[in-house]
Amino acid sequence: MTDVPTLLVLDADPLPRLGRLTGRARVVHTDEASLAARLPEADVLLVWDFTSHAVRDAWPGEGPRPGWVHTASAGVDHLMCPELVASETVVTNARGIFDEPIAEYVAALVLAMAKDLPRTWELQRRHEWRHRESRRVAGTHAVVVGSGPIGRAVARTLKALGVTTAVVGRVPRTGIHGPQDLDRLLARADWVIAAAPLTEQTRGMFDTRRFGVMQPSACFVNVGRGQLVVEDALVQALQKRWITGAALDVFATEPLAPDSPLWQVPGLLVSPHMSGDTVGWRDELGVQFVELFERWAAGRPLRNVVDKQRGYVPGH
Amino acid sequence: MTDVPTLLVLDADPLPRLGRLTGRARVVHTDEASLAARLPEADVLLVWDFTSHAVRDAWPGEGPRPGWVHTASAGVDHLMCPELVASETVVTNARGIFDEPIAEYVAALVLAMAKDLPRTWELQRRHEWRHRESRRVAGTHAVVVGSGPIGRAVARTLKALGVTTAVVGRVPRTGIHGPQDLDRLLARADWVIAAAPLTEQTRGMFDTRRFGVMQPSACFVNVGRGQLVVEDALVQALQKRWITGAALDVFATEPLAPDSPLWQVPGLLVSPHMSGDTVGWRDELGVQFVELFERWAAGRPLRNVVDKQRGYVPGH
Repeated sequence: MTDVPTLLVLDADPLPRLGRLTGRARVVHTDEASLAARLPEADVLLVWDFTSHAVRDAWPGEGPRPGWVHTASAGVDHLMCPELVASETVVTNARGIFDEPIAEYVAALVLAMAKDLPRTWELQRRHEWRHRESRRVAGTHAVVVGSGPIGRAVARTLKALGVTTAVVGRVPRTGIHGPQDLDRLLARADWVIAAAPLTEQTRGMFDTRRFGVMQPSACFVNVGRGQLVVEDALVQALQKRWITGAALDVFATEPLAPDSPLWQVPGLLVSPHMSGDTVGWRDELGVQFVELFERWAAGRPLRNVVDKQRGYVPGH
Repeated sequence: MTDVPTLLVLDADPLPRLGRLTGRARVVHTDEASLAARLPEADVLLVWDFTSHAVRDAWPGEGPRPGWVHTASAGVDHLMCPELVASETVVTNARGIFDEPIAEYVAALVLAMAKDLPRTWELQRRHEWRHRESRRVAGTHAVVVGSGPIGRAVARTLKALGVTTAVVGRVPRTGIHGPQDLDRLLARADWVIAAAPLTEQTRGMFDTRRFGVMQPSACFVNVGRGQLVVEDALVQALQKRWITGAALDVFATEPLAPDSPLWQVPGLLVSPHMSGDTVGWRDELGVQFVELFERWAAGRPLRNVVDKQRGYVPGH
């Protein structure tokens, strides 16, 4: 067992598929409290508990550090600290697992808002038959902020429903608008979808000014990271009817506290960070990590390598 | 004014666009109570109040009858009586107006059920953060019962979301299954969508036996007519967990009474017959009728002519 690498797993949940590494890795499980003490012995760190900030807290300590960190999430903002960015350590993410599930979730929210389903079910609870007219989605306009695989999957799905959809990324390229087009696109959008990584450029980008640019009929959806949005600005935009509705699956602080005012803002739909998590997702994450581990152990190049300066996996 | 035809309008709502017929028709509005008395003087009857059964009740009376009846609805079941079927009177419907809106509504319901949105918003009311896994829709199977333009639009939209979708009609033809395939398709469907006209063949077709054929994971949606479903059988199927969920937009008796038990069956989503009614729908119905009237007045063949024996507009 001395010549197999040590795989340190920061886990909160039961973790499937790692049994496939039996004999090929010494698997050590850790909780947040023990992480700092165990980092020096690890060759590889698997951040299975993607809600944890423990890596960011523990990394700047003493001793050697794993050469590879994998997070079972699309976003890497919870990991990053200057010392990790400056280090030789390679960071990989779960790129690909969440794209289509999140795209379906966004379609579900857009259609639910267009068809006024939340109100319908509120009326059902009151046993009230109240016919209303609802909105078509075909022929409307969406802007998706975030040009990674999640944003592009969202755009494909909305287009399949007949929605004219523009994607905005950090850099303009074929089929992707640059940031300079954002305000113009926001001003005509019926649906604004935030699906960007959390970086210094995107933090707080949906603020009072940007909600003010949107149409009164617009609805806003965030499936990226909570801190893309200035939450107070969104609440005010809804209260002042600058926009019609919003759905948040992610929040600046998660889980949302029971006494958070966000639970009961009229026009705001709250869901508990579940947009990408369809039946079997943990399994897929496990399979993906095992495949990456096998590449790494064979000395082949890793996939899903994060640009640590930018905070996401660059590419198409 | 004596040589212009008399257009009798059975109306409950304000009716747009008829002003375009000024000078070309003598427009007489009637309510249900006066309909029988006014039928003999009418050349054309426009059934604007598509919720009314007054035509079926008034038609068998005395005197001449209009040569053309148009209903501002897709279904014609509320009109039909043996005397009308046997008569020379041509019946037309609003074929085409509701296809895409209803298809979007079905997609909204399917996605909402897959993503467990009703439960999410129930948890929101309780300020409870409870992460769950949800279902993918891509890769699932649907069967759409009803091969008219509404059923086919539903199938196209579900296919665009990656759902493998079969359509069942009265007669098998290219791309459409016949009734003999129905039970086999029901047994493997994740989503069963009722979008058929109400006829003697379809009345009560979703009964205890058919709910028993479905998978325990299946969800049932009715956007056709309430009487396609034996409502008690559906309630039992949900209570016994023969199927997972259902959404009804139409009911045997509408509006649903406040004390109907259907409002609070676990797993049953109730909406007030609004699936096809998107902003502008009354306008589109008005424009459609005016165009048909112009064809009729010019002696050209009408469109959307109902096969009165079958109870719907046949053909593609």
